[in-house]
Amino acid sequence: MSWWKQPTQPLNPIAQQNATARQQVLTKPPGSLGQLESLAIQLAAMQEREAPCCDQIHISIFAADHGIAAKGVSAFPQAVTTEMVKNCAAGGAAISVLARQLNAHFEVVNLGTLFEVAPHAQIVDARIAAGTADFSEHAAMTAEQLEQALEQGRQAALRAKAAQCQLFIGGEMGIGNTTSASALVAQQLNVAAIDVVGPGTGLAADQLPAKAQWIEQARALHQPANAYETLRCLGGFEIAGLTGAYIACAQQGITVLVDGFISTAAALMATALNSECRDWMLFSHQSAEPAHQAVLQALDAQPLLSLGMRLGEGSGAAVAATLLRSACALHNGMATFEQAGVSES
Amino acid sequence: MSWWKQPTQPLNPIAQQNATARQQVLTKPPGSLGQLESLAIQLAAMQEREAPCCDQIHISIFAADHGIAAKGVSAFPQAVTTEMVKNCAAGGAAISVLARQLNAHFEVVNLGTLFEVAPHAQIVDARIAAGTADFSEHAAMTAEQLEQALEQGRQAALRAKAAQCQLFIGGEMGIGNTTSASALVAQQLNVAAIDVVGPGTGLAADQLPAKAQWIEQARALHQPANAYETLRCLGGFEIAGLTGAYIACAQQGITVLVDGFISTAAALMATALNSECRDWMLFSHQSAEPAHQAVLQALDAQPLLSLGMRLGEGSGAAVAATLLRSACALHNGMATFEQAGVSES
Repeated sequence: MSWWKQPTQPLNPIAQQNATARQQVLTKPPGSLGQLESLAIQLAAMQEREAPCCDQIHISIFAADHGIAAKGVSAFPQAVTTEMVKNCAAGGAAISVLARQLNAHFEVVNLGTLFEVAPHAQIVDARIAAGTADFSEHAAMTAEQLEQALEQGRQAALRAKAAQCQLFIGGEMGIGNTTSASALVAQQLNVAAIDVVGPGTGLAADQLPAKAQWIEQARALHQPANAYETLRCLGGFEIAGLTGAYIACAQQGITVLVDGFISTAAALMATALNSECRDWMLFSHQSAEPAHQAVLQALDAQPLLSLGMRLGEGSGAAVAATLLRSACALHNGMATFEQAGVSES
Repeated sequence: MSWWKQPTQPLNPIAQQNATARQQVLTKPPGSLGQLESLAIQLAAMQEREAPCCDQIHISIFAADHGIAAKGVSAFPQAVTTEMVKNCAAGGAAISVLARQLNAHFEVVNLGTLFEVAPHAQIVDARIAAGTADFSEHAAMTAEQLEQALEQGRQAALRAKAAQCQLFIGGEMGIGNTTSASALVAQQLNVAAIDVVGPGTGLAADQLPAKAQWIEQARALHQPANAYETLRCLGGFEIAGLTGAYIACAQQGITVLVDGFISTAAALMATALNSECRDWMLFSHQSAEPAHQAVLQALDAQPLLSLGMRLGEGSGAAVAATLLRSACALHNGMATFEQAGVSES
C-alpha cells in the first residue's frame, strides 16, 4: 500500500470536550470570541491537550516550473520561478518577511525550476526535472516523478515533526501554476474550465478563454480515471509536493494551515487521495482568485481572513497564523468566572 | 471653541505617494497583497514616512455603568462591570491576554462603575458617577459629566502620544452599553431602534422588542437637537470617553484601530462632532452584533476581520493589530524587483 493511503492520526475527543467546557467558563459571554473559540477547541483536539499552542511553526515553500507556461498562460516570464526561489531564500519575498515575523522554521523546496539554483542553506535542492511537461500535449509527470514529488512533501512534514512544530504552512511558487490548479479543480469538481480560471498573477480578462481552452484540451487528451491520475496528468511538482505534505502532516499529527487557491487545490487532491487528512486542515484565507470559493465550499472550509490577497507563497496562511496564536493565548490565558470572581449570566 | 472642534493632523500626501510607488515595485504581482497594501499606504500617509511602523500600541479600556441596565436590557447583572474592571487589571480578561501578546501599553480607565474599585497600577480612577442616569427617564449625563468623559478620552490619547505609540486601541466595558450604543446609532442614522438592537452579551430574542421600546421612549423624551445632545442624553461615560479619545488621537496624529459595535458607535459620534477625525480611523472587524454593518457602512468603513466576535473590550481590534504589523513588515522588508533581480511582467 502506498504511504499516502496509510491512516492519519485520530483527533482526541476528550481533549476536545475539555477545551469546549473551558471556553464556557472563561470570563466572557459564551461564544463571544467567535471563530477564535472553535479554533482553540480544534487545536486542543489535534494536540491532545486542553491547552493548545502554535509557537513552533514550520513553513515549506515548494517551487517548480510548468510546461503549460509555454502557452502564454501567465502575466510573468517563466524565469521568475527560479528568480523567486533565490529571492525567497535571500529573505526578500513576502513569505520570507512573514516567516521572520513569526519566528518560523523556513525552507524553500526546489522540486523543479527551469534553471538551476546555487546551493543555499534555506533551499532544499530536490529538482525532479526542469519543470513538468506541457500538459496540453503530454502528461505533466510520469508516475515516478509524481511519487518523487509526493515523497518530498512527506519529507518536509517529517522535518516539521522532527523540529516539534505544532503548525505546518505550505506555500508554492511556479509560473503557470494557477492553470494547473484550475485544471485539477475543474476535473475534481467536474465543472467547465472557464468557470474556474482566473487572472492568477495578473492575466488580462480577454486571455482567460484561451487559458480555459488549454485545460479543456488537456482533460480531453488525458481523461484521467481517478485523483492520482488527475494529479499526474494535470498537476505540478510543487502542487504534488503540497499534496504529499498535507497527507503526511495528518499522519504525523501536525495541524496544516492551508494558504490560497493553489494550496487549496492541493488540499482537494490530498483529501481525494486520503479523505481522513481533512480533519487536520485549517483554512487561512479567501483569495481574490475567483474559483477559490468553490474549492473551499467543496472542502466545507471556513477561511479565517478575506483580505483580497492573491500572492500565494503561503503568504495568506502566514498572515493568519497569528490568529491561531491569539486563539491559543486567549484559551490558555484568560481567567475563569470562578478564578476572577465575576458573576455569570 | 471646545477642544474637540479643533483641527486634526493632516495626512501627508507625499509619503502616501512614495508608499504607493514602493508597493508597485516590491517582488509580487501589483495588488496581490490586497488590503495589506492599502493599510501600509494609509499608515505611511498618517506617519509621514515611507516606512510605517506599528510596534508601539496603546490600549485604553473605558469602563462605566448604565442607568438603563435597571430596565433589564442585559443578560448579565450590573455588578459585572466592576468585577470585569478588576479582572481586566489583574490580567484575566480577553483584552488583558491580547495586550500581553502585543506587548502593548495597557490601562483601564474607570469612568463610573456602580461600585468602587481599589487602586491598581493599571487602573486610571476617573469615576464621574456611579453610572449614568437611566436615559429612558432622564438625560444619561449632565453637560459637565459629558465634558469630563470626553476629556478623560483626550487624556488617554495624550498618554499614548507621550509613550510615542503609533496605534491607539480603545475598548469598552459596561453592562447595558449595547442599549446605549444602539440608541446613539438609531438617533444618528435616523432609523427605528428595533432595526439596530441586538443580543449584546446574550439577551434572548424575545426581549429585543423591550430593549428597542426603552430606546424609543428615550428618543421621544429627549428629542436631541444635535450629536452633542444625542451623546449627552443617550450615551454612556465609556462611549463618550472613546469618542473623546478618537478625536484627540486624530488631533495628535495617532492612528486609531476601532473595535466592534459599541466602539464603532463612538466613532460615529466622533465623526459627527468633528468630521476630520475619520481620516485617522481604521476598522478592525465585523462584529456578530447585527447592527454593526449599518454603522460601518455609514462610516464607509471596510473592516479587516469577520470572525463572529462580539465581546468588546477592544478585543477585535487587538486581534487585528497583528495584521497592521504584518502590513508594515511586508512594506518595509520585501525586496524590490531591482534589488532581487526578479523579472517584471
